[in-house]
Order: sequence, then C-alpha cells, then structure tokens
Amino acid sequence: MAKIEEIQNIAIVGTGVIGASWAAYYLSRGFSIVATDPAPNAEANLRKYVDEAWTILSKSGLSPNASRARLSFAPSMAQALAKADFVQENGPERPDFKVKLFAEIDDATPAGSIIASSSSGITMDVIQSGCKRPERCVIGHPFNPPHVIPLVEVVGGAKTSPETIERAMAFYKSIGKKPIRLFKALPGHVANRLQAALYREVLYLIQQGVLSVADADIAVSYGPGPRWGVMGPSLQWHLGGGQGGIQHFMDHIMGPMESWMKALGTPDITPELKQTVIDAVLQIAGNRTVEQLAAKENEVVTGLLSSRTKAGL
Amino acid sequence: MAKIEEIQNIAIVGTGVIGASWAAYYLSRGFSIVATDPAPNAEANLRKYVDEAWTILSKSGLSPNASRARLSFAPSMAQALAKADFVQENGPERPDFKVKLFAEIDDATPAGSIIASSSSGITMDVIQSGCKRPERCVIGHPFNPPHVIPLVEVVGGAKTSPETIERAMAFYKSIGKKPIRLFKALPGHVANRLQAALYREVLYLIQQGVLSVADADIAVSYGPGPRWGVMGPSLQWHLGGGQGGIQHFMDHIMGPMESWMKALGTPDITPELKQTVIDAVLQIAGNRTVEQLAAKENEVVTGLLSSRTKAGL
Repeated sequence: MAKIEEIQNIAIVGTGVIGASWAAYYLSRGFSIVATDPAPNAEANLRKYVDEAWTILSKSGLSPNASRARLSFAPSMAQALAKADFVQENGPERPDFKVKLFAEIDDATPAGSIIASSSSGITMDVIQSGCKRPERCVIGHPFNPPHVIPLVEVVGGAKTSPETIERAMAFYKSIGKKPIRLFKALPGHVANRLQAALYREVLYLIQQGVLSVADADIAVSYGPGPRWGVMGPSLQWHLGGGQGGIQHFMDHIMGPMESWMKALGTPDITPELKQTVIDAVLQIAGNRTVEQLAAKENEVVTGLLSSRTKAGL
Repeated sequence: MAKIEEIQNIAIVGTGVIGASWAAYYLSRGFSIVATDPAPNAEANLRKYVDEAWTILSKSGLSPNASRARLSFAPSMAQALAKADFVQENGPERPDFKVKLFAEIDDATPAGSIIASSSSGITMDVIQSGCKRPERCVIGHPFNPPHVIPLVEVVGGAKTSPETIERAMAFYKSIGKKPIRLFKALPGHVANRLQAALYREVLYLIQQGVLSVADADIAVSYGPGPRWGVMGPSLQWHLGGGQGGIQHFMDHIMGPMESWMKALGTPDITPELKQTVIDAVLQIAGNRTVEQLAAKENEVVTGLLSSRTKAGL
C-alpha cells in the first residue's frame, strides 16, 4: 500500500452536496481531485459549490499547493479512478445500488488505494460485500459540511483490515480533520445519535409545554452549546467539578446528573409537534434564506475553530 | 414596583462561585452591588474572583458606568438588602435552609423589589413557602459561569405573580443575558436536562465499547458542538433540510432521526464506568489545571459569542 504521505490524487465519486464539500476541502489541502457523477450538470454544480466554499476555506488557511485548477471532472468512473490514491464515495444511500457501486469502484481503483464511503445509513459489512478487495474499504463519515466541520467517523466492516482503518485515521488526521474510531457499526454512527439524544429531550420538553421552540434553541445555543464547541462533555465535567476536577464531579455531581438522566422523556412525534417546530423555525429564520444562514454559520464556526486552535483547546 | 430601567442597586446573597460570577457580571453592566456572605474570607474571595473575571469582561465590553469600585460588602443581610432594587440569591442548596433564608431576605428587602434565586435543585414553590410576599420571588437560574454564559432560566412558583416573571425576563434581557421562560418546574430545569440527555448516550456508547472517552469528546466538540454554539437545534434542522429547509427536514429526515432516538441506550453508571471517564479526562487535561482550562474556554466562548452577534445569529 502507498504511504499516507504519498497520497496525491483523490477521486470523488458522487458530487452532491457532501461530495462537493469533500472536493472543496481536499482541494484546499493541496490535493489533485478527479470527480465523477452521472447527474446532469454535475460538473457545473460541483465547480459552483467549490467556488462558493473557497471563500471560507481561504479564511481558515489554504495549503501551499491548494488550487481550484487541480479539480478535474471525468465522464466515467474508470477514468476518475485509474490513478486514485484515495477514493471518497458519496453515492445514493440505497443498499443494492451501493453494493454494486463499490464493486465497480473496487475493480477500477489501483490495488493499494483506500476506498472510503461517506455513508451514514448502510454498514460497511453490506457495502463491501460485492468487492474483490473488501479489506481496503472503510467508512469515513463526515459531519456536514465536511469543508467546515472537522469530525470524520471511521469504522470498518468485518472484512476491513486493521491496517486500512489505521491508514484512514492517519490520512484524515494528516489533512486537518478530526477522525474518531468506532469499534462497532451503529445506525447513524455516533454524532447523529448524539444529536438525536439531545433533540429527543428538546421535543419532549416542547410537547410537555415546558418551553417554546425558540426558547429551547436559546437554551442550547446560549447555554451548554458554546462550551460544547470548545470542549467535549467529559473534559467539560472536569471544569464543572471546580478545583476537585473530574473526581469531585463524579463523586458529588454525577448523582444529581443521573437523577436527571432517569427523568428524561420520550416525545410522541406527531404531525402537530412537527408543525409546531416548523412554524417556530420559519419565524426565527424570518427573511433570511437557508443559504444565508448557512454561510453565516460557516463563517462563525470557522472563526471559533481557529481561535480554539490558538488557545490550544 | 420599580421600573426595570430604575434598577440600580443589586444585592448578591451568597458569594460562592455562582454569586461571585453574578456580581462580576452585574458590575460589568454598571450596577452598584452590595454583597453578603457569612463565610470566612468571603469578601476577599469575592474581590479576587471579580478581579480575575474583569479581564474577560473587559474584552466583551463594559457598560459606561462599570466599575469594580461599585462593589461593597455588607456584614449583615439587613444592611445588604436595605436598598436593593433586585436581589440575586446563591445560598446553599438545602431546602430547610433556603426557605428560612428567603423568608429573611423577603423581610429585609424593599417591598417592590424582585428576589431571584439561582437555585437549580429546589422548586420556587418550596423556596417561597415562608415568605410574606411570595409573589415577588422567582427562579433566575444561570448557566455556569454567569459572567460568560448568557442563558438564564426563569420560572416561578404557584404564588409568583405573572408580573414578576415578566419583569425578571425583561430585566435579564435588558442587561445582555438570554433569559428563557419555563412554564413548569422540573428537576435541574432545562439546560441541565439537555446536558444529561447528551451525556447519557455518551456514557452508553463508551460502556458499549463503541468508542473511547477521548473520541466521544471529539465527536461532540468537532461535530455538532461548534454548530450548537451558533444556532439552536431546531433552527439547525432548517439548514439540515437544504433548500427545502425545515419542511423538507420534517418530511424526509425526521424519520431516520426518530429511528436513532428509538435506538438510544441507557448506561449502567458503575464505579468502573466513572473511573474510565476520570482516567481519560485526566489524560486529556494533561498538565493543564482546571483554572487554566476554564480561563482558556471562557476566552474562546466570549470570542464566539461576540462574532455570533456580529454575524446577526
């Protein structure tokens, strides 16, 4: 297998929003990208996405060789994959389609190259089932949008080699991502489940009439939210324990915390509850479009991650 | 009752970490503070805390009249409360003690002034039970540390007047806090429960061997965490729905989300699990003290909130 440092050419299979965001990120790290997607206007849409993402990527710092001129678009999978040192797949989330797609990618990609899937909904056991070289196939699930948010969840299937997992972790880390290793395949991986855990209680409290949708958004984003963007929850408890740190927290504060855990509820996700959220969100958004809100958020998040790095956190 | 704009003198009863942080924040907003606490060295500890907090408060912008010279310390409750336009109580979280304390505060505070409690563990129904004027007593629960984190949870007891709740909301809002109104009293209020909801799943996944404590911290703080510091989860789904916004999200993505909600687990919080977290946190913290980590975090969070305001989010 090629060494991590020797990876130069990355193939992007599937250039929807996730694939396009990956392409923009890899370009910003100085790689040459060959992308492919059978959809009409795929190349134009991809280049438009990359151009728009380039503004924020330039702010967070481009690698010396980074250039949008290193992006090319191939009309076929075979051409896109012929020289790929690393493949990031972002195709449709349909099991039958994905198995066939991965078998084709496996056939067309040089033997030593890793093939990573951005899939969140299909396990690697299934995805790699039609491949001749399943040992080099791995999940590398990003968190949206990949060109802004550092997390990548790495998990293999039963036939994935430990070396592939280690190399994928090392590669993502080497390009500024924050990969984590999952030892078990779970629906939605980890970060989606954590979002579901938080939101289940949010919906429960809204449904119980405890607070409004707008106030629940404030409760998160002006309460624990800003701290969760700086430290994970376990390290946060170290601060929550005061001078006694995490030991004091576990000895004295975990008790009340556990009683709150036991009191958490389960909402009944009815059409009415969904409509309550929809109405409130449209009111909060006001005349700002989704694109405008996303651009603003990406800007603030990029600044946050940069100041966090400077602070050594 | 005095108008919100006429509030000038704030009394802080109890100057532990929460009370001291409140004192620093109110001073930074230009108020005159009289604090009281029977603990040995309370005044010296309070002034030390305020001096340390002043650095970060200066960065986020002081009100024109803000001065640490406006802080005085009274040897008795009667002296501290005699001229108070607003009281923020931060005493020990023992029901019997708190009921007696509030009755004394009620007796010593001018009739038109609001008395707010920072309590997270005792309901206002209980706290106000010994007061002659329970209608002006309300919970104003901050999120730590109050001089950095904007959230305040406002909830009354059965005898709290609607006017008191409205005035407390208006007052906190007028001084730059982000108050939310809770219509039901719950153990831990809302933000603590949301932390418990997230951490329950974190502990479950760690216990199931899905990922390490360190990787769970990365999953939050480099995944959804940075976005939760910019937008609440409901508005975030508006972006998650792409061009179709929140309607598309509820129609097409809430389904998988609900399946993840149903798959969430419940950890068995054993001494071994606690020790696993303690060991990992101490390793992550390394040679950085709790104080150093907290100071760095406050700095990054303050910058985040400032850039968020500039972005209009």
